[in-house]
Amino acid sequence: MSPSDRKLTYSESGVDIAAGEKAVELIKAHVRSTFRPEVVGDVGGFGGLFAVDWKRFDDPLLVSSTDGVGTKSLVARLANRRNTIGIDCVAMSVDDIAAQGGEPLFFLDYISIGKLVPEEIDEMVSGVAEGCRRARCALLGGEMSEHPGVMDPGEFDLVGFAVGVVERSEVLPRDVRTGDRIIGFASPGLRCNGYSLARAALLERAGMDLHGPAWPGAHTSLADVLLEPSVIYAPSMLELAGKVPVHGFAHVTGGGIPGNLARVLPDRCDGVVWRGTWDEPRIFAEIQRAGDVPDLEMQHVFNLGVGMLAVVEADATERALDVVRAEGHDAWIVGEIVDGHGRVHVETR
Amino acid sequence: MSPSDRKLTYSESGVDIAAGEKAVELIKAHVRSTFRPEVVGDVGGFGGLFAVDWKRFDDPLLVSSTDGVGTKSLVARLANRRNTIGIDCVAMSVDDIAAQGGEPLFFLDYISIGKLVPEEIDEMVSGVAEGCRRARCALLGGEMSEHPGVMDPGEFDLVGFAVGVVERSEVLPRDVRTGDRIIGFASPGLRCNGYSLARAALLERAGMDLHGPAWPGAHTSLADVLLEPSVIYAPSMLELAGKVPVHGFAHVTGGGIPGNLARVLPDRCDGVVWRGTWDEPRIFAEIQRAGDVPDLEMQHVFNLGVGMLAVVEADATERALDVVRAEGHDAWIVGEIVDGHGRVHVETR
Repeated sequence: MSPSDRKLTYSESGVDIAAGEKAVELIKAHVRSTFRPEVVGDVGGFGGLFAVDWKRFDDPLLVSSTDGVGTKSLVARLANRRNTIGIDCVAMSVDDIAAQGGEPLFFLDYISIGKLVPEEIDEMVSGVAEGCRRARCALLGGEMSEHPGVMDPGEFDLVGFAVGVVERSEVLPRDVRTGDRIIGFASPGLRCNGYSLARAALLERAGMDLHGPAWPGAHTSLADVLLEPSVIYAPSMLELAGKVPVHGFAHVTGGGIPGNLARVLPDRCDGVVWRGTWDEPRIFAEIQRAGDVPDLEMQHVFNLGVGMLAVVEADATERALDVVRAEGHDAWIVGEIVDGHGRVHVETR
Repeated sequence: MSPSDRKLTYSESGVDIAAGEKAVELIKAHVRSTFRPEVVGDVGGFGGLFAVDWKRFDDPLLVSSTDGVGTKSLVARLANRRNTIGIDCVAMSVDDIAAQGGEPLFFLDYISIGKLVPEEIDEMVSGVAEGCRRARCALLGGEMSEHPGVMDPGEFDLVGFAVGVVERSEVLPRDVRTGDRIIGFASPGLRCNGYSLARAALLERAGMDLHGPAWPGAHTSLADVLLEPSVIYAPSMLELAGKVPVHGFAHVTGGGIPGNLARVLPDRCDGVVWRGTWDEPRIFAEIQRAGDVPDLEMQHVFNLGVGMLAVVEADATERALDVVRAEGHDAWIVGEIVDGHGRVHVETR
């Protein structure tokens, strides 16, 4: 019998329902490890149920965000290491929630993949669950979808979606004003932004090997550095906002420091950020050198070592630094708010 | 200067920030067209804000779901028609919300694409917005992400997330019992399931042309039939549940009628579904013939013309049919609940 005479099944067309079911079994323990008391029911069902404790709030708003890991997924695939990319996925969405002053409540993930290998899904979701535990939000649901013929077998995309709650009177940004100081939270790596440029510079242009040293003499591999999981700032941001007058947070994603700081500026203020006031992880210089990337381009694509900006009242600056450092993050005063027109100036000190 | 001497920019690495910004401008009107009074603020910000009217509920639960359009995106791309795939994306998530008895409140979309063409994004989001208007939920946020080197230029994936609210006492399924009748809501097409098998059978095995007739003598093209947008049942489901005793809904997605009906069955009941009691759109027979697909496989992969099942009290069956039909859907009695062990039997009449 020739192949074209065979009866066609879903499995032969590239979708393996049994593999999907096995993956669901594997991930159940990860999912349950994230549950908060508000989760109603268990894994399964057509959607996740969550009982917000409304009595904790006077006038609660839901706040919601979605984002993916971009082409960091390709680096994870090339390095055959999928256990931390889920942390990145959670970080992107929950830190957007916290940037509005919101407490992340729950998270859902969506994985599309060329060929569904249950063990690979298990590895990815273990990272998602770790991210949810770090963000203190429940992994309330998710979906995995096999895309044969559209994605290569090992190719995958990981997308996240988070919902949080915030008191209406505490929504950020509010009241950003001249004289405020800008505090930067350290990011040891790229988070999820700029990977297309980083790959073009390091892997294509410079021909570097992911398994080789990250730079001459480095003790860590390029894969280690590029797959450094995104720090999840949300709990520390909420801690900070609870203790000192925070006027705004800017999550440094696509657009870099200038693109994101601009989002919290009122029309009558500019933001000034001083490069040189924080430690820029070496990987950024390596990318810049490998690709001969213009400085301005670097600033608009990468976080350059600062993954979150907090705009705080000037006289609370030192206290704010103490809080953020006590939460385990390196932090620096990286700039200030001045009179202006909603623009950001990056100056080099 | 050789190409490898050139300064590398994000744009040259395949990510066009200006295209992204243009796309955001284009979609704003679509997004705003979906806003409900509960939406706080406007397009932009790090996350969408939504003020649920909690006073409408005694003990509200949030219900959340995520899903994508699967490889239906490839058909849309091959047919160069992207204006309805967003409706499919909304349908998948909001009908999962309604299947739990929930009222969809808001939706977020995530688009990953090989090369970001603002006009293509505009087309896709116009469909998402149309879906949101049909589902009566707000398009509260979204993200678009360019994946050069990972996805081909025209390749895209479209993922959705929906959040709804349901009174705790009205969560479905509840009280599915022997004697209940099963009502099927008509689906004119495949919704978002089985496209890998459909493509393998029709395009690869039978060598059909998307732009040719869907079958010999058909007045519609194969693209028309395969891109038939998913019906959004949510508003009609809520209408039905408000008027007659509904014990459960099964959204017929991956796993087909048996796989999804099983999800609402208690251990002591079986579900019996009678094929032949509804009109199966011809496309399913064409797929089966082109791929010589076994009958059992067809049942587990495709909706076969029934996109939603409602389990209703026997003496409310006729009233239920009237309500669903008055909402504009074809509907039939397609089965019943009997004593059993949580299994589904598909019988042919």
